Amino acid sequence: MEVMNFLNEVTSRHPQAISFGPGRPYEGLFEVERIGYYLDAYQRHLSEELGRTPDEVRTLLFQYGRTNGQIHELVARALRNDEGIEADPQSLVVTVGCQEGMFIALRALFRDPSDVLLVSSPCYVGITGAARLLDIETVHVPEGENGVDPDVLQRTVAELRAAGKRPRALYLVPDFSNPTGTCLPLPARHRLLELAEAEDLLLLEDNPYGFFTRTGSGLPTLKSLDTRRRVIYLGSFAKTCFPGARVGYVVADQHVQASDGSRTLLADELSKIKGMVTVNTPAISQAVIGGMLISHDFRLREANKPAADFYQENLAVLLDSLDRLLPPEKREAAGIHWNAPEGGFFLTLTLPVPADNALLEESAREHGVIWTPMRYFYPEDSGGQNQMRLSLSYLTPDQVAEGARRLVGLLERSCV
Amino acid sequence: MEVMNFLNEVTSRHPQAISFGPGRPYEGLFEVERIGYYLDAYQRHLSEELGRTPDEVRTLLFQYGRTNGQIHELVARALRNDEGIEADPQSLVVTVGCQEGMFIALRALFRDPSDVLLVSSPCYVGITGAARLLDIETVHVPEGENGVDPDVLQRTVAELRAAGKRPRALYLVPDFSNPTGTCLPLPARHRLLELAEAEDLLLLEDNPYGFFTRTGSGLPTLKSLDTRRRVIYLGSFAKTCFPGARVGYVVADQHVQASDGSRTLLADELSKIKGMVTVNTPAISQAVIGGMLISHDFRLREANKPAADFYQENLAVLLDSLDRLLPPEKREAAGIHWNAPEGGFFLTLTLPVPADNALLEESAREHGVIWTPMRYFYPEDSGGQNQMRLSLSYLTPDQVAEGARRLVGLLERSCV
Repeated sequence: MEVMNFLNEVTSRHPQAISFGPGRPYEGLFEVERIGYYLDAYQRHLSEELGRTPDEVRTLLFQYGRTNGQIHELVARALRNDEGIEADPQSLVVTVGCQEGMFIALRALFRDPSDVLLVSSPCYVGITGAARLLDIETVHVPEGENGVDPDVLQRTVAELRAAGKRPRALYLVPDFSNPTGTCLPLPARHRLLELAEAEDLLLLEDNPYGFFTRTGSGLPTLKSLDTRRRVIYLGSFAKTCFPGARVGYVVADQHVQASDGSRTLLADELSKIKGMVTVNTPAISQAVIGGMLISHDFRLREANKPAADFYQENLAVLLDSLDRLLPPEKREAAGIHWNAPEGGFFLTLTLPVPADNALLEESAREHGVIWTPMRYFYPEDSGGQNQMRLSLSYLTPDQVAEGARRLVGLLERSCV
Repeated sequence: MEVMNFLNEVTSRHPQAISFGPGRPYEGLFEVERIGYYLDAYQRHLSEELGRTPDEVRTLLFQYGRTNGQIHELVARALRNDEGIEADPQSLVVTVGCQEGMFIALRALFRDPSDVLLVSSPCYVGITGAARLLDIETVHVPEGENGVDPDVLQRTVAELRAAGKRPRALYLVPDFSNPTGTCLPLPARHRLLELAEAEDLLLLEDNPYGFFTRTGSGLPTLKSLDTRRRVIYLGSFAKTCFPGARVGYVVADQHVQASDGSRTLLADELSKIKGMVTVNTPAISQAVIGGMLISHDFRLREANKPAADFYQENLAVLLDSLDRLLPPEKREAAGIHWNAPEGGFFLTLTLPVPADNALLEESAREHGVIWTPMRYFYPEDSGGQNQMRLSLSYLTPDQVAEGARRLVGLLERSCV
């Protein structure tokens, strides 16, 4: 996270610049008035659907609660509708955002100093940061244009084994990855699941952006294809509901050995850890998210159609603007290119020159546009030197168009 | 926590038993309708007092927020009024309950394998559990009737130093400790602060119960006496507002060395860790607690007067009932005694026979009364064998009186 400080400094020094930096969801679709509405919907659900007495409702909202959460059944219903994932509610752990889910999953899985976490690289800093906090060794598996390459993964696993290490799990965002925007093709998903079984690996599937594509164009999640409990699914409501609730969840349906030697559900081991980190996820936050799930009939993908359309428009505006201002011959001659994801919040732009802090500073000062150096997502400056991450989620279409114009101004001055 | 499983099992097998088990706050004083009221109060504060625009209010409620919290200034005001603690809001970290505060404080302070955490023993399982999760060595410092004994602490520190260890911090609950109900006298508070300075120790002061005593009878917190930044204050709103919000805080005003060698505030180091555990404390929860602080004019002690009176009555009923049913000669002859705290949620009852799971089972089945074996709060059955923790916070006065009658039935059968 510390590498992000420079980005934050630049942003605060140039408040008028258009920023392709933050991966935050667009706020124009949030309505403050709805908070009370969702809280009411959850309370009605408790009393009318579940027959809870007023005293029991009060206990559920005010008191310490079940460590693994109180909306696990509601989340399981939405997962079935939205992703075709059949999750036993008992295998679900409701967490303080996806970040806590990653943290407790790592703590549960990694106990031996020889255990290694593999990450699809470049990589979201939340997982590498959590691993660092827990002193877990992380090995980056370089992505291709279509995300993690199963062959590269297999070679890396073999090398680690030969070096006496135990590759334990691979973290990846198969759908519209942060930071690159890549998407793992269906055959690679199947390969990955086979490889996980053959190599005794777990897959930590993080899926915050899967809804944000054209209707019907999404690929099945790894978890929905997972017949052998190889996938731990890390769920987030930060982009599909809102970040301020800090509600996420983990589907941990693996059978594992408990500390006393008995067989138990991984979710129950996560529970023991979560109890020592946050006790339980705030009931008020769970109530608001629960109310949203109920109000949308447990179909968040459908509820997110307006948001998906909004991000799709931003994506189209950005890609069209770049294409118009830097047509193929011109950008090829200059050595500039970018990927064209079908959804999500991010895309990757590659230049012929370093996309470093100096260029970012110049970009903000001279051109009024901000972006994230891709090198921030690699360990110790080991990659992404000539790339930027462009995030389109926090801007309006007009800002995206103007931001693209300014960005091309920078590119023409620096590279063309 | 796993030792608590037996208690939970017994409780679920005997739902009609009166339970002196849970340390939860009494629920009769919670009102579901107030949640919306507090949320409104916080929003009005943002717009009317701080001049935030509707868009800014929306951002504060829905979006990712400041890692160290958004109600830090409100909490600082309440700390000044309620405890006479002058805390710079920048030194405050708003956490997901006090538990996250303990967890991130331990993670920040303990980096070397020779670092040792001292705990006043018997000890709240939340701190020892967090230490275990972080592989931190914990040494129990036995309490006397008045809490931790500074002389015993000093000897323990010397012994650890001689063994090549570095005692880094002492965790304690000076006011109406969980589990024993003991209170650290004022001279011992001063001694402890001097010792901390002389021995280069930090004091982790956890204070969930300080308000629950007779008005004006409380002692100053260690933090309010701390002129040398030796105290890290662990704050909780679980008992003074409500547990379901999961909002706590840490006052971490120490100057420390950051990983890059520069001097920084400990609160900023906690922030880096918190970002990797939960990103930030849920805005909705902070808004409700912020609204409560505002509604009570930043005087939670006063707002908790009805709750304090309620717990005082329970305490009086319990002590009076025990005294009436087991008068001094009788209990002395039988080798039974208990302490008489002036406040808090807990007291300690000592018997001449083991207060173990077998006796607990018999107590629930034959006498309809449940309590917590004190041995649960010691490491590996190393103490408290003949003691029980009685918690009076979750019952009505009538239940306390009837529970005392049943408890004496058990004692008469087992010990007298």
